[in-house]
Amino acid sequence: MAHIDLNNDNPGIVGLFHFRPDTANPLCQLAETLLRGPSPLSSAEREMIASYVSYQNNCHFCHTSHGASAAHHVDGDLSLIDDIKNDFEETEVTPKFRALLDIARKVQQSGREVADEHIQKAKAEGATDREIHDTVLIAAAFCMYNRYVDGLGTWAPKENEAYNEMGKMMAHEGYMRDRPELD
Amino acid sequence: MAHIDLNNDNPGIVGLFHFRPDTANPLCQLAETLLRGPSPLSSAEREMIASYVSYQNNCHFCHTSHGASAAHHVDGDLSLIDDIKNDFEETEVTPKFRALLDIARKVQQSGREVADEHIQKAKAEGATDREIHDTVLIAAAFCMYNRYVDGLGTWAPKENEAYNEMGKMMAHEGYMRDRPELD
Repeated sequence: MAHIDLNNDNPGIVGLFHFRPDTANPLCQLAETLLRGPSPLSSAEREMIASYVSYQNNCHFCHTSHGASAAHHVDGDLSLIDDIKNDFEETEVTPKFRALLDIARKVQQSGREVADEHIQKAKAEGATDREIHDTVLIAAAFCMYNRYVDGLGTWAPKENEAYNEMGKMMAHEGYMRDRPELD
Repeated sequence: MAHIDLNNDNPGIVGLFHFRPDTANPLCQLAETLLRGPSPLSSAEREMIASYVSYQNNCHFCHTSHGASAAHHVDGDLSLIDDIKNDFEETEVTPKFRALLDIARKVQQSGREVADEHIQKAKAEGATDREIHDTVLIAAAFCMYNRYVDGLGTWAPKENEAYNEMGKMMAHEGYMRDRPELD
């Protein structure tokens, strides 16, 4: 049960969106722009960064739902969710994407943990300024979404399979459908 | 110097807004709604929470600018910035607001650090569900803004006085003016 009375039974952040629609609006717009808007990173890569950071923040709802979304941007195989947890042991990751994941991991700890050496490493592997920017902002944004979801004690389904339909909708229909109607 | 070439000289998050206007839009809308939109918490209180969390995240730009904004919602005395750093030693804080600050501090550490006892303490001091919600989301949002600002290594003026005009504009004109024009 959530720490406050949300007046609805939706899991994770969706219950919070319905509790306060006026903040839901920019939160959904941000997710839509960051994860599905124009970017040199694919939506699959961006969802993997989101899921990876969420796992490090111990946010089950965001880790699993964004992992499922990442899977649905590729082949729909939900084993990707567990592989993200296992630091991409099974998934082939380019040196550039690995360097961006390392930056995301630093951002998760603190903005001040990102050092020039992490940036130079990513640039040496071919990362552009825009790819570094988007990686940092996605990682930072999930440090918000994760804290919002868990700081208010929302409930979340446990099994990966429970996130299959949700991930499919996130990948293919996006985040603006999560917005409740504003009064 | 920032970690990436921002193509503009604006400090802190403003330089980032100009680098990528399409994410600036929801980020500004979120700040405007959270800090100046309808809420049972005053804008001064909400800016104090924002500044307090930013100090704990060691984000000088956000701590000082939002501290200056909080000051301009009251009497314009910039010594509030240092008092926020000193855990409100000089400023009179109600037991309810202190309990909300304690929740914000937990959110800064991790969403999972917020325990039922912190929520019950705030409720016992008279905090409503909406006040708890807004406190958690403000604290979470600044865990994003702080990481965005420092993760990309933006520059920030050092002295409190350099934030006086910025804080006055944030308090009285708001956050939507920070948005660059979208193409």
